[in-house]
Amino acid sequence: MKFSQLLYDNVQEIWEKTHHHPFINGLGAGNLSVEYFIRYMKQDYIFLIDYAKLFAFASAKATDLETMGAFAKLLNETLHGEMELHRQYAAKFSITNEQLVATRATPINLAYTRYMLTVAQNGSLAELVSALLPCMWSYWEIGKMLVANYPGSDEHPLYGEWIRMYSSEEFGSLATWLIDLLDKLTEGKPKRELQELEQHFLTTSRYEYMFWNMVYKGDDWPV
Amino acid sequence: MKFSQLLYDNVQEIWEKTHHHPFINGLGAGNLSVEYFIRYMKQDYIFLIDYAKLFAFASAKATDLETMGAFAKLLNETLHGEMELHRQYAAKFSITNEQLVATRATPINLAYTRYMLTVAQNGSLAELVSALLPCMWSYWEIGKMLVANYPGSDEHPLYGEWIRMYSSEEFGSLATWLIDLLDKLTEGKPKRELQELEQHFLTTSRYEYMFWNMVYKGDDWPV
Amino acid sequence: MKFSQLLYDNVQEIWEKTHHHPFINGLGAGNLSVEYFIRYMKQDYIFLIDYAKLFAFASAKATDLETMGAFAKLLNETLHGEMELHRQYAAKFSITNEQLVATRATPINLAYTRYMLTVAQNGSLAELVSALLPCMWSYWEIGKMLVANYPGSDEHPLYGEWIRMYSSEEFGSLATWLIDLLDKLTEGKPKRELQELEQHFLTTSRYEYMFWNMVYKGDDWPV
Amino acid sequence: MKFSQLLYDNVQEIWEKTHHHPFINGLGAGNLSVEYFIRYMKQDYIFLIDYAKLFAFASAKATDLETMGAFAKLLNETLHGEMELHRQYAAKFSITNEQLVATRATPINLAYTRYMLTVAQNGSLAELVSALLPCMWSYWEIGKMLVANYPGSDEHPLYGEWIRMYSSEEFGSLATWLIDLLDKLTEGKPKRELQELEQHFLTTSRYEYMFWNMVYKGDDWPV
Repeated sequence: MKFSQLLYDNVQEIWEKTHHHPFINGLGAGNLSVEYFIRYMKQDYIFLIDYAKLFAFASAKATDLETMGAFAKLLNETLHGEMELHRQYAAKFSITNEQLVATRATPINLAYTRYMLTVAQNGSLAELVSALLPCMWSYWEIGKMLVANYPGSDEHPLYGEWIRMYSSEEFGSLATWLIDLLDKLTEGKPKRELQELEQHFLTTSRYEYMFWNMVYKGDDWPV
Repeated sequence: MKFSQLLYDNVQEIWEKTHHHPFINGLGAGNLSVEYFIRYMKQDYIFLIDYAKLFAFASAKATDLETMGAFAKLLNETLHGEMELHRQYAAKFSITNEQLVATRATPINLAYTRYMLTVAQNGSLAELVSALLPCMWSYWEIGKMLVANYPGSDEHPLYGEWIRMYSSEEFGSLATWLIDLLDKLTEGKPKRELQELEQHFLTTSRYEYMFWNMVYKGDDWPV
Repeated sequence: MKFSQLLYDNVQEIWEKTHHHPFINGLGAGNLSVEYFIRYMKQDYIFLIDYAKLFAFASAKATDLETMGAFAKLLNETLHGEMELHRQYAAKFSITNEQLVATRATPINLAYTRYMLTVAQNGSLAELVSALLPCMWSYWEIGKMLVANYPGSDEHPLYGEWIRMYSSEEFGSLATWLIDLLDKLTEGKPKRELQELEQHFLTTSRYEYMFWNMVYKGDDWPV
Repeated sequence: MKFSQLLYDNVQEIWEKTHHHPFINGLGAGNLSVEYFIRYMKQDYIFLIDYAKLFAFASAKATDLETMGAFAKLLNETLHGEMELHRQYAAKFSITNEQLVATRATPINLAYTRYMLTVAQNGSLAELVSALLPCMWSYWEIGKMLVANYPGSDEHPLYGEWIRMYSSEEFGSLATWLIDLLDKLTEGKPKRELQELEQHFLTTSRYEYMFWNMVYKGDDWPV
């Protein structure tokens, strides 16, 4: 069994719960409160900045030119393409660029990015990829699930764009590339090291769920 | 005004709320549920391991032998002295060493340590100290407050030891050393850099409050 | 005085010696032994890979989106543009891609990149930029000096391309951007911190000189 | 075959050359110029500070309390014990503490420590140990070789103390602990990862040789 399959199996219960979370269902049914989505957009915007830093660390940690270049491209496209798409999409919800920039990370947003950044700085490329993968992989799964389970959801005037993006072949091929890279990086690794990677994958899958729940509930700093 | 005074003023509202948190009041009144304290002991034990790593990074980041040596001593004493005290104290509550080791960090515990570790790896020594200081400084404040407000609390059969430790002169001189070090490291720094340090101090003060609340409420991973 | 001016003044003696080094003079006069230049091309190719990693770390360390994006772009262009130019240029000297890839870093090449990587991982963005700047800035100075002092050298069939690249306005504006960035990052910094940056700039200026001397002399591992 | 045995075999030619280097022979024969040894003492003193930082990083990177604590102890003893021994021993050669502190690292000293620090910050604990091990292991080999090949050398009024220290059982057990740790950390690792460790061990063995040669020749910055 490929290591990525093991990772996938390990977190199915968590990902399933994410698929049934009212935020995700609301996206599919098209009846998610716009207020909640705005909360998500803002938190996701600043999350993405830290997520891009993971690509920078990955580029620096890669030991071959091809992988180094692939992460450099991903970093560059995120900062010069995807961030702009986020700003444009946010504008549809009347979120200004100033509001995006002024967003303060919630405890769970910060918890999630700091977990990944700690791994990124301290760990191997395999550790880094295992920590950042649940975000991408689970988004792709959510995108495909919504298209399959909520016909027409990808044409929704507000949320269709989001669903089209994350169910797209382009996004899927990015997730697939990372999955394949992790399988390559972990080939032949001893079990004790694989278990650390499983722990990273599990932990960020958990934080991923909690991120959805946080924007749904509007959880923020209690003090 | 010393920079440490500014930091202190910035977080008074948060620290005050900590002082009035039922967990802390329960420690002082001596009527805190043992179950809650056991939760705290376990989470604190694994927290301390990551906290010690901050001393290791601090030793590596110090630019003079004296500071490097002071953090090396602190790291060594934490791992070879304080951890053992924790194990002995935990034994009073019938927590075995196996239980301590098997403890799984809660989302907030992990959030807190990963925030500090990210700063420790990526930032300057001043950033690192500003992130780790609220834990030590606020514990000292709590220790002194409990002794002052709850006479005899430091003789409580269960919690007295904890209160004596954190209200002690020895612990206070450690906190004072870190405060003075931060004032020295930040002397003459431009405002934009000081603001980043204020942000670290504020954020870990918040997580510190949330840590108390987490062990009180018994919050753990929702998935 | 701008901090960059101080840095410049500090290393004039070293840069002057570089300008009069037989390798550089040979480039200008067009009579540099091709064998020496091939040595340079190979060592420079693998140097550039590690140099690009500095851009990755800089992108991760930047605290504003603009700087983060600028280093991401530089990283991406280096890996997907400049490296290819290097391969094409190397082909003119019958250096195959296989030979480039198989090049083993000499002690001084490794010393230079590891010095910068240590700073990049451990230090602030200001430290990182002060360490990587001498390479870029001094190359621009060399390019301009050769064009000025050796008329027609930029049309030399072998070395003209190199001289045109590093004397170009495009390259100059990159160096200028980094110089301005460092001036901005160091504004208001206390003297003790600036002195550390001066030390980085001085040290990599020295290694830069030694790099030229190493490829000229053909210095490699003695064991 | 244990991985450490493979590492050892890989570098025998280099270590053999070190054993026959005039500096080492001079130590054994007792006729090494004091001027050369003073050069060594000064460079070694500042080398040791950076070497101690590797123990700090190792403590932070360890994934079990025992290893974390062992490196913490080593760090603490180096800074509070071994450094003092170095200062006392240096005093025998009329080297003042001020001279030790004011020593400027030569290009090779810096190259060597920065190589190890880059690995320490970026790599796994196994990578870190493979990079720092040649210094300790080869010193132990040199110590034992000198005692065996130069009877009475460990009683030499000037150099005997050095030879006694590095041929001692205490020092040997430290080296052995690191060797065993590396064997444990590398168990079951795939070949491509072991090859990176071999590269670290080889590179620092080379720099180790060059360090001896540097202090013998008095090599310093050419500019």
